[in-house]
Amino acid sequence: MSPLLEELIQALRCLPGVGAKSAQRMAFHLLDRDRTAARRLAEKLIEASERIGRCTRCRTFTEAPVCALCASSSRDPQQLCVVETSADLYALEQATGYRGLYFVLHGRLSPLDGRGPREIGLDHLAQRLAEGEVRELIVATNPTVEGEATAHYLSEIARAADVGVTRIAHGVPVGGELEYIDRNTLAHAFNGRTRVG
Amino acid sequence: MSPLLEELIQALRCLPGVGAKSAQRMAFHLLDRDRTAARRLAEKLIEASERIGRCTRCRTFTEAPVCALCASSSRDPQQLCVVETSADLYALEQATGYRGLYFVLHGRLSPLDGRGPREIGLDHLAQRLAEGEVRELIVATNPTVEGEATAHYLSEIARAADVGVTRIAHGVPVGGELEYIDRNTLAHAFNGRTRVG
Repeated sequence: MSPLLEELIQALRCLPGVGAKSAQRMAFHLLDRDRTAARRLAEKLIEASERIGRCTRCRTFTEAPVCALCASSSRDPQQLCVVETSADLYALEQATGYRGLYFVLHGRLSPLDGRGPREIGLDHLAQRLAEGEVRELIVATNPTVEGEATAHYLSEIARAADVGVTRIAHGVPVGGELEYIDRNTLAHAFNGRTRVG
Repeated sequence: MSPLLEELIQALRCLPGVGAKSAQRMAFHLLDRDRTAARRLAEKLIEASERIGRCTRCRTFTEAPVCALCASSSRDPQQLCVVETSADLYALEQATGYRGLYFVLHGRLSPLDGRGPREIGLDHLAQRLAEGEVRELIVATNPTVEGEATAHYLSEIARAADVGVTRIAHGVPVGGELEYIDRNTLAHAFNGRTRVG
């Protein structure tokens, strides 16, 4: 295979979920049918790498100093939802009717990997809560061990600032069948049952 | 979502097999963890789009006038294997011990899509056979309707140039179980049975 083609295939493998075979398929597809799209993708990759930074308020990805969500006057500044990633933020925006604001950690507490409170912006979050506007901190970290530890830490920060804390519900997924749900989730759903009548 | 981020996600969708969800995941991954890789990918996309052309002998992708295979003195110029795509060429190179040369059509005959003999380089192939060096034309087009039509056309070109024609075998895949093989393949394998004793 030509050296340049090998290099392109190797470079494509930086994309998550793309192995040797898919990368080869992508390279041939672009060269064969769509060099214009390949060039446009290259331009966007460079432009995004250089210009997209983090919102100074919520830390989500944006090319502006403050993102559109934080700049919006129609969102309720008394509610602040904490998520691990920008992808989680967009998932919540698409699925829920939430009208408050967000705070993006870009990770979770993981001391062994050198990610402490400062690395995930918790000092920044504490300052934000100290401003006194936020009334409810909605914790939406993932239900993993590290996500739970982060959630615990977030609760403490909120209590120190006298801000109410809520947590999104964990339980049986809608459309899931009890029989096929893993034991942890089922135990969590059972213990977290709510009164309906 | 920020406009530039939307544009990057949209641009990533030019890759085959990448839908809205994967494109979003790729964009976040690159921005979050690997902007250096994103820039390297961008460079390779531009370099490959601009510099990779087709080998003047076999038409495979290469940045040189003649590809490494065609330029090699250790390959047998009497055997010429015709494949539909460069991907097929590499698949054969990786799987077989074939030591002859290749000819890449970059497609197959498909008059309805405006792909006639000239578009897939058959005039070029006829010239090549007229040079008199090739003794065996190995047809390795795909066993689809259009691939079969192309194979038929290739046989005629070879016969006109008095070159022997062979076809790669089609039948039950190695490791496949008869019970689960589609009817066409099974009929083909049965009719194409070979004598073993």
